[in-house]
Amino acid sequence: MITFYDFASTVPGKTFNPNTWKTRYSLNYKQLPYKTEWVEFSEEIEKVCKKMGIPPTSKRPDGSGAYTLPAIYDDSTKTGVADSLLIAAYLDKTYPDTPKLLPAGTEALQTAFVDAFMSKFGSSWQLSIPLLLKLLLPSNVDFYVRTRSAALGKPLLDILPVGEEREAQWKSLKAGLSVVDAWYQKNGGGPFIMGNTPSFADFVVGGFFSFVKAGVQNVPEPEWKEVLEGDNGRWKKLGEALEKYEVMV
Amino acid sequence: MITFYDFASTVPGKTFNPNTWKTRYSLNYKQLPYKTEWVEFSEEIEKVCKKMGIPPTSKRPDGSGAYTLPAIYDDSTKTGVADSLLIAAYLDKTYPDTPKLLPAGTEALQTAFVDAFMSKFGSSWQLSIPLLLKLLLPSNVDFYVRTRSAALGKPLLDILPVGEEREAQWKSLKAGLSVVDAWYQKNGGGPFIMGNTPSFADFVVGGFFSFVKAGVQNVPEPEWKEVLEGDNGRWKKLGEALEKYEVMV
Repeated sequence: MITFYDFASTVPGKTFNPNTWKTRYSLNYKQLPYKTEWVEFSEEIEKVCKKMGIPPTSKRPDGSGAYTLPAIYDDSTKTGVADSLLIAAYLDKTYPDTPKLLPAGTEALQTAFVDAFMSKFGSSWQLSIPLLLKLLLPSNVDFYVRTRSAALGKPLLDILPVGEEREAQWKSLKAGLSVVDAWYQKNGGGPFIMGNTPSFADFVVGGFFSFVKAGVQNVPEPEWKEVLEGDNGRWKKLGEALEKYEVMV
Repeated sequence: MITFYDFASTVPGKTFNPNTWKTRYSLNYKQLPYKTEWVEFSEEIEKVCKKMGIPPTSKRPDGSGAYTLPAIYDDSTKTGVADSLLIAAYLDKTYPDTPKLLPAGTEALQTAFVDAFMSKFGSSWQLSIPLLLKLLLPSNVDFYVRTRSAALGKPLLDILPVGEEREAQWKSLKAGLSVVDAWYQKNGGGPFIMGNTPSFADFVVGGFFSFVKAGVQNVPEPEWKEVLEGDNGRWKKLGEALEKYEVMV
């Protein structure tokens, strides 16, 4: 049995984090049996990972390990893995008879895709702060603001974009997503990046839109609605095609 | 017979441009018969394209078409195409029995790869100006400097990086290429992005390194040598694997 570590949230029975979504989609797509262990967005992340022997995903400036979710612990192999892309590679290798997240020959292209997709956001990730603050458990908000502020070197709430800067960030976010739409247009017509079969890249894009869908329930900014319905329905269509992999276990 | 429009250069019998290289690799990989028509980097580009009915690849601020190479004209279908990625898609479609540049299902991922690769350069493309100035026909240098300066809104030679900025750009360029190397590391061990079979993405990367190899013959900056030999021999190995597709016709 696989244990999947996901973030607890205010959305009842629902995950919200764009990164842990990537792994939930992955597990559901492969129809692997798993159970979710809900982790608070707090010191609990590091505690749980250390307890299960799940390695850190990067280093802090002081050289100590930084722990993040998603993470899994696989009982059957006694293996802990963190980072959605590493988890995808682990699952493909360990369960070779399940549908591939990184189809043969595309592993490197999928990795480049993740980089290309993330690079489209630039500083417009700041637009998602209000969503995140509403989705985190109220008891976790302080931890999030404190650790993010430390990483930024200034108070997180100071960087919330306003006025012209906010306009520019919306414009940049929408333009970036339209570039991603132009990539999808080359896929031969299916809802997924490789056509009619989903792969990890779709779960990366889907994770972002699932996060937005969860967030706008509390933060009804009209721009998010435009994003969700934009690019001639591309993201709506992708969301519908991904629905069957959104089961909560 | 396909006519391939490439830039004339000071390198005897050799192409140099990173973008036209993508198409030369493509044609050679497919073993399609073609002849090269050498075009000067000057008003000749637009003249030749217009004459052959090859469409522009973008628009100038005044709304008129901007013409670029690579371009091809295919006698057998009376079709002119410009832009290396559009040419690749055209060749795959028109000659379905030749090896695929964009293997089925990867068209969108390859497109995203091109974006991801180009995004690694940022302002460090400025480091390549000295190479380009040596590779262009002397009679074309003025056209290049003039049109680039107009696009930049300041004299091209003013942006040649020096001192600390130059150091920073080298660092950024090398770091960017190391990220691309990390993508290649996921390919299962072959020299190419999809493993042992080349695809368009490799020709994009190969085009950059072929340009550098041609350029450093005249501009022996030690940093370029480090780039060519960097990333644990990744680019040397890729270059060797691509050699057989570098025939000049």
